[in-house]
Parts: sequence; C-alpha cells; structure tokens
Amino acid sequence: MSPVLNEFMKKCIKVIEVELENAVQKLNTPERLKEAMLYSLQAGGKRLRPVLLMATLKAFNKEKKMGLSAACALEMIHTYSLIHDDLPSMDDDDLRRGKPTNHKVFGEAFAILAGDGLLTYSFQLIAEDESISPQTRMKLISLLAKCAGPEGMVGGQAADIEGENKSLGLEQLEYIHLHKTGKLLVFSVLAGAIIAGANEEELQQYERFAVNLGLAFQIQDDILDIEGDESKIGKPVGSDADNQKSTYPSILSLDGAKAKLAEHVSLAKDALKAAGHNAEFLIGITDLVAERDH
Amino acid sequence: MSPVLNEFMKKCIKVIEVELENAVQKLNTPERLKEAMLYSLQAGGKRLRPVLLMATLKAFNKEKKMGLSAACALEMIHTYSLIHDDLPSMDDDDLRRGKPTNHKVFGEAFAILAGDGLLTYSFQLIAEDESISPQTRMKLISLLAKCAGPEGMVGGQAADIEGENKSLGLEQLEYIHLHKTGKLLVFSVLAGAIIAGANEEELQQYERFAVNLGLAFQIQDDILDIEGDESKIGKPVGSDADNQKSTYPSILSLDGAKAKLAEHVSLAKDALKAAGHNAEFLIGITDLVAERDH
Repeated sequence: MSPVLNEFMKKCIKVIEVELENAVQKLNTPERLKEAMLYSLQAGGKRLRPVLLMATLKAFNKEKKMGLSAACALEMIHTYSLIHDDLPSMDDDDLRRGKPTNHKVFGEAFAILAGDGLLTYSFQLIAEDESISPQTRMKLISLLAKCAGPEGMVGGQAADIEGENKSLGLEQLEYIHLHKTGKLLVFSVLAGAIIAGANEEELQQYERFAVNLGLAFQIQDDILDIEGDESKIGKPVGSDADNQKSTYPSILSLDGAKAKLAEHVSLAKDALKAAGHNAEFLIGITDLVAERDH
Repeated sequence: MSPVLNEFMKKCIKVIEVELENAVQKLNTPERLKEAMLYSLQAGGKRLRPVLLMATLKAFNKEKKMGLSAACALEMIHTYSLIHDDLPSMDDDDLRRGKPTNHKVFGEAFAILAGDGLLTYSFQLIAEDESISPQTRMKLISLLAKCAGPEGMVGGQAADIEGENKSLGLEQLEYIHLHKTGKLLVFSVLAGAIIAGANEEELQQYERFAVNLGLAFQIQDDILDIEGDESKIGKPVGSDADNQKSTYPSILSLDGAKAKLAEHVSLAKDALKAAGHNAEFLIGITDLVAERDH
C-alpha cells in the first residue's frame, strides 16, 4: 500500500472512531444499552465502508468531514448486522474479531436491542446533519434504507439463510453477495458521490465500480478460506468446504475464481477511469481488497 | 363511541391496511421474508397509531392521505417491535392476538430479519413520499428515529428488561412507559401535526396531549389485568401480580391508579383545548383508550 493511502486511511479511521464514540456517548438512554452498542462499534475492524465513502469524496476533491454522518450511519448499520448475524438463531458465533460476540457479553435480549438501536439511530444521524441540504439528506436516507433493507442487505441475509445446505448456482451465489455485502458497499461509494454532488453519469460509473469491488471482496474471501493463513484470517482454513458451502471456488474451481476476481478488479478500475477522476485512493483500496491476506 | 368516529376509524384502518399490503408486495425481496413481514403486519390489532395520526390531521382540517406514508412507517415500526419482543430471548411469547407469533411460524432467524426489514423499510417509505416537502420529510424521519430508537422505544424496552423482577418506583415505571409505548404515540400525533404545518405552540400542546394519552393507555392496561374479562383481553387476568410485575395499581393501589388515569385523561383533553382546535376525534379516541375493555 502506498504511504499516502496508508496515511489517508489512518486519518479516516481515527476521525470515524472518535465520531462514533461521541454519537453514542451523548445518547440519553439506559447505560447498559449504550455499553452494548459501544462494545460492538469499538470492536475494531477495517472500517472499509467509511474509508470507501471518504475516498470517494476525495476523488471529487471534497473534504472527508462532509461525509462524517453518513460514514457513522454506515458503520452503525454494518455493526448492527454483525450483532444480529452472530445470534444463536442465526450464525451462532461466540467470537468476532477475537472478542466474545455481543450476546455472549450482554445476553441475547440486549444484543437484539443494541442492533435495533444502532439501525434506528443511523437514520437519525443523517437526518440531523444540517451541513447537508434536506434534499441530499433525503436521497441518502432513501438509498441507505434501500441498500440496508429487504431489497438490500436484509434480503441478502434472508437468501443466504434459505440457501444453507443447498447447492447453489453462480447466479444464486451472486444474488446473495450482491445483496448481503454488496449493497452496503454500493451505498458507501454512492453516498460519497451524492454528497459531492455527482451527476447521473458519474453515479452510474461509481455504482459499477462499487458492485465490482463488492464481488471482488467476496471472491477473495472465498479464496482465503482455501489458501489463507489461519493465523491471519482468524478462523480455520477450509471451513467453507467442511460446511459444504457453495462458494466461487466450489462452483468455478480455484483457478476460475481467481480469474473472476481479476475480471471484477479490472471492471471496477474501468468504471473509475470512465468517470474521469483521479481516484487513486479508490484504486489503491481495490488492490488492497483483492490482495488482502485476511 | 360516536357513529362518526366509528366510521372515521374504519376508513383509516381500511386505507392503511391496503397501503401496508401494497408497500410490502411491491418489494423485490425473497418470498419468505416478504411473507414473514406481511404475516405480522396483517395480524390485525387496533391500528391505534395510524388512526391517531389521521385524527390529528383531521383536527387541522387536513386529509388522511397526507399522512399515509408516515402512518405505514409507524405501523411497521410498531409491528417490528412486537416481533422482536415476542422472541424467546425477550418475552418468549407463543401467541399474539390469538395467532402463533412470527418466530413460531417462520423461525427465529426470519423473525429477526422480518423485524429488521420492517424497521429499515419504514424510513424508506417516508423518505420516498414526494407529496411531502424534503424539509418536512427530514423532520419526520429525525423525530421517528428519536422516538423509536435508543432515546425512545428501544431505550424503554431496555429499561423494562433491566427492571424485570425488581420492585420499581413510580418514576422508573413512568420512564419505561413514556419510552416503551409513549414515544411512538407521541410520534403518531406529532407526525400528523408536522405534516399539517403546525406551529411551535401547537406542537407543544399536541405533544402534551400524546404524552398523557400514552400514560392513560398504560394505566388502563394495568387496571384491565386486575379487573378485565379474560375472554376480552385475551390473556389470564392477574398475570402481572403473578409475575410480581411493578404496575400502577401495585404502586398506587387500584383506586390510586384509577385516579391517576382520570388525571391523565383530563390533562390530555386540556392540551387539546389549549390548542384551540375542534379535535372531536382525538377526544373520542382518548375516551376509548381510557374506557376500553381489551
């Protein structure tokens, strides 16, 4: 990674983590609910979505801080989805990023409520950001709800649960990924473009970029489950195959999955080129996503 | 109930039920998720929140249909909260309004997702309602998130769980009710007033009305658990006492609770009088809430 991108990402992560903490601390709500919300928000992670949003603003020569409320909203929605996904009736995970999952610490009832609280609060953050015009806030909220709700992330999660223990085709697998993880990545990028005042043509190119980035992200995830280093990815290699999960390599072979990854990386970069911006940070992030080892 | 109010409520319920069904049917989402969302939305209920919103519009001489998206959003949020509250890790209820609860029919994972989907979609409905100005939509979304989120309903639910099996004082009991059920009733009324273009003074009076109506609603709930007819309220009388739950009668005695109920009904009506409107439907609904037998 280039030192400039590294520096940029560090700054984004710092500013977003301060803002997330402030946003929750100022809530007038029972202490234990606040703790449960903060626990998962502060569990670390790559903060990929806020970074993408801010790197998109940068491609439009706009300042990070213009995207602060939308970036916090994104991270809150991503975090709520992890809390609910980890619940015993969903993926039943005890650990997340090496720490006990939310329901293991606060109990299931508070984990459900912490998720509900983060989801609801995320819309308030954008709605109350007076540095953005009401028209733009409206667009952001409508797009965020669409990307996070039944036609987006929640729909993808539902399709994923329905697809468990079934042998899926490439089309079904893509539906799941495009929705379960893809739509929120699309929002990350489009939110930056919308706040920057992008035109229709630019929005289309940035959406194309984000869709391909999201698929690349997912394919690399599947490849790491075969070729990764357990100590780096933090879970046993080969768990997808053990669980007979449909993945890109299981459908396309490992080589086929690698070719598909390269294809999506190339399509993502083409879209940025077509938009005609100097989007060096977004290009750098695309390489990071495709080449990451965890 | 006056025949005019009866007619008005019937019309409200009809229009809202058609709109709720349409809103969900048009979603492009996995069929089973749609079914789970519709199952609970169509489980009946008094539709008190949409009716309150529309009766408030009426007090401002405005048409019902101006409040349709906010009314649907309200009913979706109320419904999501019931689905999540009924989960095994929360109240663990098998029946709701005489029908199996959502997780009994669709499983816990889909019940959680149906709730998440309804909550998220509710914001989209308001954000996309172009019959309302962006400024007004913004106010509605910000207030809805506040009333439904950690500082509102979710916060009240958290306080309720923390208060289980503890002996609560009147102040703690009021905190729970003002938030768990009260805030969404406040939104119901204020949403109508905001859409109608109410001024600051009017908003204050309508909020005072809604707060007192919400407390009256809850006190009558507690009274019915002692004096109600099991066949009408649909659950065993005396369950609060059996569960050693803190209630208005347990803190104030039954007579004290009845006096408190009368006080809140009177304060609610005073607020309407102070607003200077002919709010006959809101007055009628207040009497219904205080005198209901289920």
